[in-house]
Amino acid sequence: MRLEKKAVVLLSGGMDSTTTLALSIRDGFRTYALSFRYGQCHEFELSAARKIARQADVARHIIYDIDLRIFGGSALTTSEMKIPHNRTTAEMERGIPATYVPARNTIFLSLALAWAEVLEASDIFLGVNALDYSGYPDCRPEYIDAYQSLANLATKASIEGEGQITIHAPLIRLTKAQIIHTGLELGVDYKLTHSCYDPDHEGRACGTCDACKLRLKGFSECGVPDPASYQKGISF
Amino acid sequence: MRLEKKAVVLLSGGMDSTTTLALSIRDGFRTYALSFRYGQCHEFELSAARKIARQADVARHIIYDIDLRIFGGSALTTSEMKIPHNRTTAEMERGIPATYVPARNTIFLSLALAWAEVLEASDIFLGVNALDYSGYPDCRPEYIDAYQSLANLATKASIEGEGQITIHAPLIRLTKAQIIHTGLELGVDYKLTHSCYDPDHEGRACGTCDACKLRLKGFSECGVPDPASYQKGISF
Repeated sequence: MRLEKKAVVLLSGGMDSTTTLALSIRDGFRTYALSFRYGQCHEFELSAARKIARQADVARHIIYDIDLRIFGGSALTTSEMKIPHNRTTAEMERGIPATYVPARNTIFLSLALAWAEVLEASDIFLGVNALDYSGYPDCRPEYIDAYQSLANLATKASIEGEGQITIHAPLIRLTKAQIIHTGLELGVDYKLTHSCYDPDHEGRACGTCDACKLRLKGFSECGVPDPASYQKGISF
Repeated sequence: MRLEKKAVVLLSGGMDSTTTLALSIRDGFRTYALSFRYGQCHEFELSAARKIARQADVARHIIYDIDLRIFGGSALTTSEMKIPHNRTTAEMERGIPATYVPARNTIFLSLALAWAEVLEASDIFLGVNALDYSGYPDCRPEYIDAYQSLANLATKASIEGEGQITIHAPLIRLTKAQIIHTGLELGVDYKLTHSCYDPDHEGRACGTCDACKLRLKGFSECGVPDPASYQKGISF
């Protein structure tokens, strides 16, 4: 019998993972936050993750170094590929964008699973989203289900007949507006979160990459102003 | 239409992964070998992997740094846990040993999947073995099947309707003796391979950890001498 429910929460420092962290705490979990320094071109989201983890008073926050640049293949980890700007929602929904990082969620979940196993936690939370997901394959509900099936064959507990692993993706069917609404009700401070793929050197958002466009659309539909800092000359 | 069949092969530098590499080459793949520096207490297996990859003339060999010590939980990555010695086969089959590294194969396969996606390779080989597997959950056939299902939902190709990923575990139902027999037929030089969990400072095998015991039993059953170097004073 476990005395406390522990959960590992993937925390990028963006809106979705921060809302997911708040949901895991609301659900009574003692949370262990896991972020990754994976070779993303900017580190502003990690400094956001650090502040968010501290404010949420997580049991522990690990920033894990894993260099995904070695394999290449994404605009987020190489300057050779360009981050797209000013795309419409319809354009975002067509095909998989250059910002897709091959197997990223699979890798991140595997490391979360390793930590969960050591902690004897049977719950993993991640903030993937299938509606506003920019066409990433590893954000679909069937992907999450397959990961959970795998996790339940991959661990010591699965052989010893102990607790089953649950992969929680509580935002998977929500729109960005619904995510923001949920977070605001839980007291999430979205000013701390960082979404932009292409910030300036002070970390201010560009307002035009896919991540900014989806974020701004969400706040607009929610009828509340986005507290993030945007680059000068950008008005919405 | 792909002009050449590429495969990513997980190569630890041990007997099983080396035999698997030889099988992938026999099957006509252009091979990309992936090894991990994950915090194992000794690096002799990596120097073995380097020699094996060179001799096999792989298209590329990456030694990937990923620190699995951060989460703890295994005798292979911490000096706080003891590597068991002189266990019988029956003892090895009972429960999961201290040398188990939480979610290791799941993490390694995820990184192989990322590389495969970038290479546009649809085949991944790994040398897991369900008979002489020392009780690891992530060496079972049902685990490999679940990983393949996941992989086929995790990648760009799975959305774009392109080639399916196949996870090859050609040794999964072989005994160590059968593995050695297969490798010898393919010209594998087992002198290059390193199996021992607890070598001395010159990389000579202890002869008594689970990995050495399984290896020695295999060679003995195969009726050929093991060409590995063992510590002085050990005779079989």
